Amino acid sequence: MTREEIIKEIREKKSCLCVGLDSDVEKLPAHFPKTAESVLEFNKAIIDATRDLCVSYKLNVAFYEILAADGWRVMEETAQYIGQNHFLIADAKRGDIGNTSTQYAKAFLQNLPFDAITVSPYMGSDSVQPFLGISGKWVILLGLTSNKGSMDFQKLKVCANYLWEQVLVTTSEYGSAENMMYVIGATRAEDLERVREILPDHFLLIPGVGAQGGTVKDVMEKGSNKDCGLLINVSRSVIFAGGGEDFALAAREAASRFRNEMKDYL
Amino acid sequence: MTREEIIKEIREKKSCLCVGLDSDVEKLPAHFPKTAESVLEFNKAIIDATRDLCVSYKLNVAFYEILAADGWRVMEETAQYIGQNHFLIADAKRGDIGNTSTQYAKAFLQNLPFDAITVSPYMGSDSVQPFLGISGKWVILLGLTSNKGSMDFQKLKVCANYLWEQVLVTTSEYGSAENMMYVIGATRAEDLERVREILPDHFLLIPGVGAQGGTVKDVMEKGSNKDCGLLINVSRSVIFAGGGEDFALAAREAASRFRNEMKDYL
Repeated sequence: MTREEIIKEIREKKSCLCVGLDSDVEKLPAHFPKTAESVLEFNKAIIDATRDLCVSYKLNVAFYEILAADGWRVMEETAQYIGQNHFLIADAKRGDIGNTSTQYAKAFLQNLPFDAITVSPYMGSDSVQPFLGISGKWVILLGLTSNKGSMDFQKLKVCANYLWEQVLVTTSEYGSAENMMYVIGATRAEDLERVREILPDHFLLIPGVGAQGGTVKDVMEKGSNKDCGLLINVSRSVIFAGGGEDFALAAREAASRFRNEMKDYL
Repeated sequence: MTREEIIKEIREKKSCLCVGLDSDVEKLPAHFPKTAESVLEFNKAIIDATRDLCVSYKLNVAFYEILAADGWRVMEETAQYIGQNHFLIADAKRGDIGNTSTQYAKAFLQNLPFDAITVSPYMGSDSVQPFLGISGKWVILLGLTSNKGSMDFQKLKVCANYLWEQVLVTTSEYGSAENMMYVIGATRAEDLERVREILPDHFLLIPGVGAQGGTVKDVMEKGSNKDCGLLINVSRSVIFAGGGEDFALAAREAASRFRNEMKDYL
């Protein structure tokens, strides 16, 4: 999916919502047996209930790898079920020497139908380039993450900048706003203005709204650019909004609420 | 496997060799069909040929994920085939918010029989802690990696230290030398003395010998501590030493050469 196509979807749906399918088998509504097959069934119901309200889905790979080979198959079938009309993100946080990153790039962006993969910057340019080598696909680089531990290194001063700022400055040279986005946690909304100084054009993938405490309002006001430039991810607060047999309806209602908060800004 | 057990194995075998099963299906000897099943068969032959020469095996997860669900199964069966007498590393370079790291920890350290997993430090303490929460298992944290891109961030100055030094200082508080090791590239041998100033006791997992250009001699001389304190990984230069039907013998000969270089120091 190209940048233009993403922007068009956002405008038409008046939504920059990304639904995070962190489908922890242990947290499925009680009537599901705790199997890989249940995760697939759950995902399909959530997707059917939210398709028109969101422009993107993000699969957190950890929740599939915990189910081993069956989990990998469920991830694959979920991605296929979503189809081509949503920006499809593998939240995998990979990154290794070039030789190895090439394998991950093929695994997620060629063998699986993901549009984008999240990548950790710690190993630098040659760990990121193989992902950018796949035409029509995107890298979403970890910039400033939403968790408490982000203070440990991302907030260290490197020359005049914080490390996370330097990561943005340096890595924005690796690709362009047509094939790179950045993860910036909603819990770091106070830093979004600085992000926009460094990266006026790039799309940002924003986790941390909902269960982690960030708000749509803060993010939209401080992080939007002329093209919106945001994919706001909500995972648990949407998919586990209800724990009963009507879980899909509850998810739809939660997604609607988040989408309505976005609507006014789009 | 405990620290004491690792040291005992190193002393008995006079080897700190870790064989890296980066078993790229595209690079298998020509007589193998390019299937997941071939990777398993290849791995078993390599393991049989090198078991007595090495103390550790490292599976680079990317080379299995590229084969999707079948690859995951091959990774699992390879790990089981290796058994309990070698220190078994999942080279996965994971790390995410706590909730997600917990899933990865279970996937690799509980559901699969790995002793250790490599983890990226970028997201800080709460991304690493869930891996340390699994009793008897190890985290191997990326310190100073062997690739060119390591200059981009790891070599940035943060106060008086380089970032990689600060990563070592800060993260060594997360656990102990009984449940944490560090990845330090052999191509950075000039920095090993500084590593030992910060971490006199920890084991180091050293990639980058062989195809990437590092040498056993440099690493042993500059990186050893009183317990050896090193696992020197060689991947391609061992497993792809021969491309014919005698590939396992060629791998054994290559592993022997690396092991003989270590012997004098042990």
